[in-house]
Amino acid sequence: MADALPLVLLAEQFAKLPGIGMKTAQRLAYFVMSMSDDEVTEFSEAIINAHEKVGLCSVCQNLTDKEICPVCDDVRRDHSVICVVEGPKDVSAFERTKEYNGVYHVLHGLISPIDNITPDSLKIKELLARIQKGGVEEVIMATNPTVEGEATAMYISRLIRPLGVKVTRLAFGLPVGANLEYADEVTLFKALENRNEM
Amino acid sequence: MADALPLVLLAEQFAKLPGIGMKTAQRLAYFVMSMSDDEVTEFSEAIINAHEKVGLCSVCQNLTDKEICPVCDDVRRDHSVICVVEGPKDVSAFERTKEYNGVYHVLHGLISPIDNITPDSLKIKELLARIQKGGVEEVIMATNPTVEGEATAMYISRLIRPLGVKVTRLAFGLPVGANLEYADEVTLFKALENRNEM
Repeated sequence: MADALPLVLLAEQFAKLPGIGMKTAQRLAYFVMSMSDDEVTEFSEAIINAHEKVGLCSVCQNLTDKEICPVCDDVRRDHSVICVVEGPKDVSAFERTKEYNGVYHVLHGLISPIDNITPDSLKIKELLARIQKGGVEEVIMATNPTVEGEATAMYISRLIRPLGVKVTRLAFGLPVGANLEYADEVTLFKALENRNEM
Repeated sequence: MADALPLVLLAEQFAKLPGIGMKTAQRLAYFVMSMSDDEVTEFSEAIINAHEKVGLCSVCQNLTDKEICPVCDDVRRDHSVICVVEGPKDVSAFERTKEYNGVYHVLHGLISPIDNITPDSLKIKELLARIQKGGVEEVIMATNPTVEGEATAMYISRLIRPLGVKVTRLAFGLPVGANLEYADEVTLFKALENRNEM
């Protein structure tokens, strides 16, 4: 390795990020060399700032730099419908549709015994406490259609149903724009099973 | 966008890096949230450190945190052979082969009129000065086999040849492990043209 040590150390830092291999990390480190002093300071401060100033919303557990996130704080939104998602990324995905007007609850993970993620390590207690406070009519389980997502949705729905709240699950079916030919069997079966009258 | 502002700002910083789109940038920003305080400090400092402490070697113009880089400073290396490359990444690539014992010269770019990169903005003057000091017997043009790489190699070789120094070019041919069937025409032609006796 002919690289200068600070460069190697920076590349190692980049390589810790998800989806960044050692080769890309090295490329990014070289890029930092080509940035101006101001750009480097801005970059470095953005990392510290984001980490320091962003915490969890005390209501929905989404990431926010306030005590209560803008969604939970918005009186125009329907607080009787809670959409339960795995992570903050999923909240962003729903918000991009601009079609959902309820609120969210972020679990910060899915139950996965293999990865040692038990229900206790997720924000399930907080969800139950929210529901017990009253005013909630529907909980939409919007975890991914994977084994862990399904298991988590099942587990939570069993806890919520006794509280007299409607629990729903996102619809499965063909993605819009998809080609039947390339759809997997389970998706196609779900699309058939959940067919709607036209 | 439901994301907290410091998170958005951090994602924008990541998105400035080469090959990182907005979606990946967001994913990286979320990952920073999951890092410990120490990890975040270390990351942020590595960026500042690399940028502050790393400069150009006064001899070969490669990135280094010393006045003269370890390669140029190594008396066991053959200082009469200079391998001219586009960037520091290429030096790392040659060093990984562990077969090259000469020294390097880093141009920091290739001549490209379209991108407004003229010979003046490359480290060509520094290369000529090195050669004029004497002691150099061979200059290997090791720029990429692209239009810009070829043009730069041609341009520099014309400047060097009058100085009475041998100028060579990397061999073109089939990459090791390649499949003839998938080789492009130009590579195959070069491989045929440069064939060696067995």
